[in-house]
Amino acid sequence: MKLQDIQGILCDLDGVLYNDSQLIDGVIESINTLKNRGYKFLFVTNTSGVTSDELFVRLTNMGIPVSSDEILSPPLAALNYVKEKKYNTVEVLGGHSIKELFYKDLKKDIDNPEAIIVGDIGKNWDYQLMNSLFNKILNGSDIIGLHKGKFWKSSDGLRIDIGAFIKGLEFATSKESICIGKPQKEFYESAIKKINISPNNLLMIGDDIIGDIQGAKEANLTAIQVKTGKYREELTKNAIIQPDIIVNDFNELKDLLP
Amino acid sequence: MKLQDIQGILCDLDGVLYNDSQLIDGVIESINTLKNRGYKFLFVTNTSGVTSDELFVRLTNMGIPVSSDEILSPPLAALNYVKEKKYNTVEVLGGHSIKELFYKDLKKDIDNPEAIIVGDIGKNWDYQLMNSLFNKILNGSDIIGLHKGKFWKSSDGLRIDIGAFIKGLEFATSKESICIGKPQKEFYESAIKKINISPNNLLMIGDDIIGDIQGAKEANLTAIQVKTGKYREELTKNAIIQPDIIVNDFNELKDLLP
Repeated sequence: MKLQDIQGILCDLDGVLYNDSQLIDGVIESINTLKNRGYKFLFVTNTSGVTSDELFVRLTNMGIPVSSDEILSPPLAALNYVKEKKYNTVEVLGGHSIKELFYKDLKKDIDNPEAIIVGDIGKNWDYQLMNSLFNKILNGSDIIGLHKGKFWKSSDGLRIDIGAFIKGLEFATSKESICIGKPQKEFYESAIKKINISPNNLLMIGDDIIGDIQGAKEANLTAIQVKTGKYREELTKNAIIQPDIIVNDFNELKDLLP
Repeated sequence: MKLQDIQGILCDLDGVLYNDSQLIDGVIESINTLKNRGYKFLFVTNTSGVTSDELFVRLTNMGIPVSSDEILSPPLAALNYVKEKKYNTVEVLGGHSIKELFYKDLKKDIDNPEAIIVGDIGKNWDYQLMNSLFNKILNGSDIIGLHKGKFWKSSDGLRIDIGAFIKGLEFATSKESICIGKPQKEFYESAIKKINISPNNLLMIGDDIIGDIQGAKEANLTAIQVKTGKYREELTKNAIIQPDIIVNDFNELKDLLP
């Protein structure tokens, strides 16, 4: 790892630049400083309920200096994946904007799709849906999850997430799903391709020891962990794959890099 | 394995004595012959939607010579298990008779049960139920499945089964379930205890290479596979654990045993 070789930065969002919707002090200036020194940025996130364009609006409204093609999230990574793998027909479980993103480029088929894209559908999981997906998978549909989260934290407690339903379908059909999102290698491959910089010259900065650090190291990137967001000392200590560097927060990155 | 030491017979039902509801020719006479020679019988099945008493009525109506205490199915095995493990409070997902079976002996608690018994509830799976079970498990409830079936064959095609939902809960909570039913060792332990004969003097006869044969061998019983029901030559050939003897059908058992 040579920090003087770094040309590009893959940067996680939640927990690195902000907590919930609260910007961390100084990050806007830090991004500007690094951009002025010539570093290319790609903001990479597992947020799956909205498209990259919707994320762009959200970040812009927060004052974060970003352009719409500097964002990669699972919906876009999954779209890239299905196009690259030459799937022709898909069925999309997700919100309106996610459906639109896929159905713009691929043929919608809810009877016998080549791929079923599973995103966030809130409380819409039920037996009929599970049984219908189960039978489509047995008939040959691949299942592509925008993520495989176990649960998420809502304002009134923990809620079971789509990973549970995807896992159940895998078990019943004896067929593995393809999951797009950090730490999956397909996601990092998509990010490397999009920022168009070799792994040797790329670093990833994030708060999640698995999604950000393990994923980045497996893709042969330099991995820097921040102590903000969901960073927990124990989790990092016990992890098999370690970050190259740990910093207090995102703002320290500009002091590390030339 | 010495067949002359056999004193008791664990006998699977569907696929051994009948296919669907169609009795296999000669089985009634064969059971009577073996009972007259002094062999004790316990009929062991993974049928989970009804109680042992309801099964008793069904078998009796088919003319099979059976008493109500000669039947062990997952609901009863699970009840034995939770009583032995000294659970005090349970929540039961299942039909009316299954609920009654448990709530007769154990305290019903749908808020914070020590164990959640998961049986067949048809199309009643939905997000709210999954999320509620997920949170109870995180709060300490154990999950006990009456079986972990992947799917079953209905008159209009394959239907996803409770195993998928149990697997999803295991994934989301990072907690293993306890599943009662063949081939689980808890089920065979319960059967050995109920028939009250040592494994050395006990044989199991069944059509399922995993549930019946592997389960029986792991419990140190003599295992005999019939070629009726779901027997498939390839499945048996490729299985790691082999039956001691393969017979054409249940009726051949009386010719094998003294």
